[in-house]
Amino acid sequence: MGSKLTSRSTDYSKWYNELVVKADLAENSAVRGCMVIKPYGYAIWEMMQKELDRMFKETGHENAYFPLFVPKSLFEAEEKNAEGFAKECAVVTHYRLKADPDNEGKLIVDPNAKLEEELVVRPTSEAIIWNTYKGWVQSYRDLPIKINQWANVVRWEMRTRLFLRTAEFLWQEGHTAHATRQEAIEESELMQQVYADFAQNFMAMPVIKGVKSESERFAGADDTYTIEALMQDGKALQAGTSHFLGQNFAKAFDVKYTSKEGKQEHVWSTSWGVSTRLMGGLIMTHSDDLGLVLPPKLAPIQVAIVPIYKTEEQLQAITEKVEEIAGQLKSKGISVKFDNRDTHKPGWKFAEYELKGVPVRIAMGARDLENGTLEIARRDTLEKQSVQQSEAVERIEQLLQDIQENLWNRALQYRDEHITSVDNFEEFKEVIENKGGFVAAHWDGTEETEDKIKEITKATIRCIPLDFKEEEGVCVFTGNPSKKRVLFAKAY
Amino acid sequence: MGSKLTSRSTDYSKWYNELVVKADLAENSAVRGCMVIKPYGYAIWEMMQKELDRMFKETGHENAYFPLFVPKSLFEAEEKNAEGFAKECAVVTHYRLKADPDNEGKLIVDPNAKLEEELVVRPTSEAIIWNTYKGWVQSYRDLPIKINQWANVVRWEMRTRLFLRTAEFLWQEGHTAHATRQEAIEESELMQQVYADFAQNFMAMPVIKGVKSESERFAGADDTYTIEALMQDGKALQAGTSHFLGQNFAKAFDVKYTSKEGKQEHVWSTSWGVSTRLMGGLIMTHSDDLGLVLPPKLAPIQVAIVPIYKTEEQLQAITEKVEEIAGQLKSKGISVKFDNRDTHKPGWKFAEYELKGVPVRIAMGARDLENGTLEIARRDTLEKQSVQQSEAVERIEQLLQDIQENLWNRALQYRDEHITSVDNFEEFKEVIENKGGFVAAHWDGTEETEDKIKEITKATIRCIPLDFKEEEGVCVFTGNPSKKRVLFAKAY
Repeated sequence: MGSKLTSRSTDYSKWYNELVVKADLAENSAVRGCMVIKPYGYAIWEMMQKELDRMFKETGHENAYFPLFVPKSLFEAEEKNAEGFAKECAVVTHYRLKADPDNEGKLIVDPNAKLEEELVVRPTSEAIIWNTYKGWVQSYRDLPIKINQWANVVRWEMRTRLFLRTAEFLWQEGHTAHATRQEAIEESELMQQVYADFAQNFMAMPVIKGVKSESERFAGADDTYTIEALMQDGKALQAGTSHFLGQNFAKAFDVKYTSKEGKQEHVWSTSWGVSTRLMGGLIMTHSDDLGLVLPPKLAPIQVAIVPIYKTEEQLQAITEKVEEIAGQLKSKGISVKFDNRDTHKPGWKFAEYELKGVPVRIAMGARDLENGTLEIARRDTLEKQSVQQSEAVERIEQLLQDIQENLWNRALQYRDEHITSVDNFEEFKEVIENKGGFVAAHWDGTEETEDKIKEITKATIRCIPLDFKEEEGVCVFTGNPSKKRVLFAKAY
Repeated sequence: MGSKLTSRSTDYSKWYNELVVKADLAENSAVRGCMVIKPYGYAIWEMMQKELDRMFKETGHENAYFPLFVPKSLFEAEEKNAEGFAKECAVVTHYRLKADPDNEGKLIVDPNAKLEEELVVRPTSEAIIWNTYKGWVQSYRDLPIKINQWANVVRWEMRTRLFLRTAEFLWQEGHTAHATRQEAIEESELMQQVYADFAQNFMAMPVIKGVKSESERFAGADDTYTIEALMQDGKALQAGTSHFLGQNFAKAFDVKYTSKEGKQEHVWSTSWGVSTRLMGGLIMTHSDDLGLVLPPKLAPIQVAIVPIYKTEEQLQAITEKVEEIAGQLKSKGISVKFDNRDTHKPGWKFAEYELKGVPVRIAMGARDLENGTLEIARRDTLEKQSVQQSEAVERIEQLLQDIQENLWNRALQYRDEHITSVDNFEEFKEVIENKGGFVAAHWDGTEETEDKIKEITKATIRCIPLDFKEEEGVCVFTGNPSKKRVLFAKAY
């Protein structure tokens, strides 16, 4: 504690990095680009996992586990994927270290233990999974396959940032196989909706559902459905994607089924994933200059209780009362931490729970004991109020709901204020440069224009929103005709 | 279905491999030594994870996540560990694949993308974790650290078997740091007890708690606490270990704390883990020639219901009744699958649920409808009985408890019948060779004797049991004095 965070207005990026480390969420490790997720950060990720996993199962998916390694040749089988992903990846070439004969105490790679075929640490698992599905699918009776995996993946990123872009990250990847095109498209859309629901209902993070332009699509996908969020610095964050893969992987790995009519058909497929990047999105959607702000539904500690006392007798009397209230809160499924450490002062503890984003903080002192009251502080607005102990449980329960709702409304308002429709390129540049956020503009549909706009403004097409209506217009850059606005933004 | 399993008496090892594949638990992958854990197998593993995770948290542990990769130099820092583990491991040497200029469609490792320092895919995480803890520990106030991680690890095993020994496997690894020797020893013992409780109460798998002899200890441990189970072929399975690491890792990574008295002290530590190997133990403890037998507490499907009908009307009437009963079972937390697929006959379904170890199978036919009955079959004893529908829920609930208990008793009896005390080496060889199981024998405490016994009989010291009393005796091999019997067995 003690040393304050850099403020967002001073240096947003520095604020983020400091917050992640000081709030005990994650830190850099001895391995370039790989992070250590600390217990408090991991507890938030576990809560996300739990809800997502429930949602996946409720929509008919099962979990499984596929190997960490992908033989190099499987990437060759799926060329598009190889071009898109396999370039920067961790390659295992040997299977033994041995003592260096020329240098005592040192280890070297044993040159005699070279693998016949190199193994790639999975950057994503389409290749290994479709190579497996090949053995599982013969008939239409074997379909659909609706599998999810929770796993670590590695992409050799050059510039990394905690949670947002790391060489190793944790994610889930769904991989489904279907008999028909229509069913696979419906699955892709369903999972985009599941992600959007999770972002809204648990993260209190507004997202825009859309599809990617061809150049922003996952290599190997016919369509990429995305959810795009907006961070407080006006940059967009791609928070989850769901890919309609057509028959691309089925063709690359020769996965066919016999239809009811006895015909051999290639299988249709999807894949979809969200990652620990969501942690970055969660942090940057709600937090402030005092530290993390967590929506109650994803807070490992929802209520922190700090006693304020001078004598042991006072502490004992406070403890008795606190345990009664804490018990009632817990019986309602509310997580409570009574912080009776004698190694830290109350003020220090207040600052710590602010830094860590605990939604509700309660203080109880000697005067509260006399008056039958306690002080409730909410993290989102920093408001405090004195409340009768007898009403505390009910008030806190309501307050947690209010905070969840307030965070959503606040984030939604910010996001909506940062979608700007523009009709010429001067205005486009002006908004991207100074206001930030999403720019809704007409685009002529060509990759060339997309590239040029990116070159000039660093803004990319985040998505073609599903709920944008068709309208006649002209591309802000070329003046060529366009039928729909798309959303541009600078992005993480 | 259809093709029966090889019987255990014909070829135990073949029986096991067939069962794992046919019951849809796991299969080999395109990557040597790495398995695919299929949804049904993974669902069992998830149930194990859930209970273990709860037990870890109830004993004050938190989850976190550390990097997959360990820089080679960190293994050098911990020499003992390097000798014990780092020899056979996956080594990442490069970070890029590129198109082969001489061979279209092929990928090669980019020679310009060689890592400055090779990375080892973690075979266990002591090195990377203690390198991290160094930054977390300054004062006694920072202790204890009680962290667990659920992760994948890789050990380059030459001979692999599904679940029992695979190059990549899933596990949890606890890594704790303490201010005192005594606290660290208590932690090691506590986690051994947690593992033993889990084995008994959920897996219905009896285990013997003991400590390892020096030669069987984890490299880097001062003491290894183990739980040892017995499989139906008379071979032992090490099911979980908890290591008291002394100050070995703290010294290797220079992790010191300032005590209350202001002195600099090295930290004391433990590590402990169980893995997907437990799946192998679960399978081999209870299963029979018809397939898997699962204890109800770890069964993804506890009750399977199969309708037997000729007409659509019958199916409809059965469905109505089944849904009523299934609803009542689910409200008691019992997992139920109503298998109304019209693509398979009832007999086929019966065989499938036997193969997959579903504890209770219910059949309901037209005559049952008339009589208000249903047929209940239990997987452990294969007994069937006709039961009034009105009593079904209560009977099933009781039956699930009975099956859990019966599996425990059966396994316990088998295990106890296979602990043989012997007092001379002829008898020792005889029992190891013909009867199998554990042999309780005096041993002179030397590694030399241990090695010779292993050379002659293939039996190793599984553990020095905690509950064996001291008694005067002489080593079965050398005749030298001994104060305690130890347990020998052939082992997985």
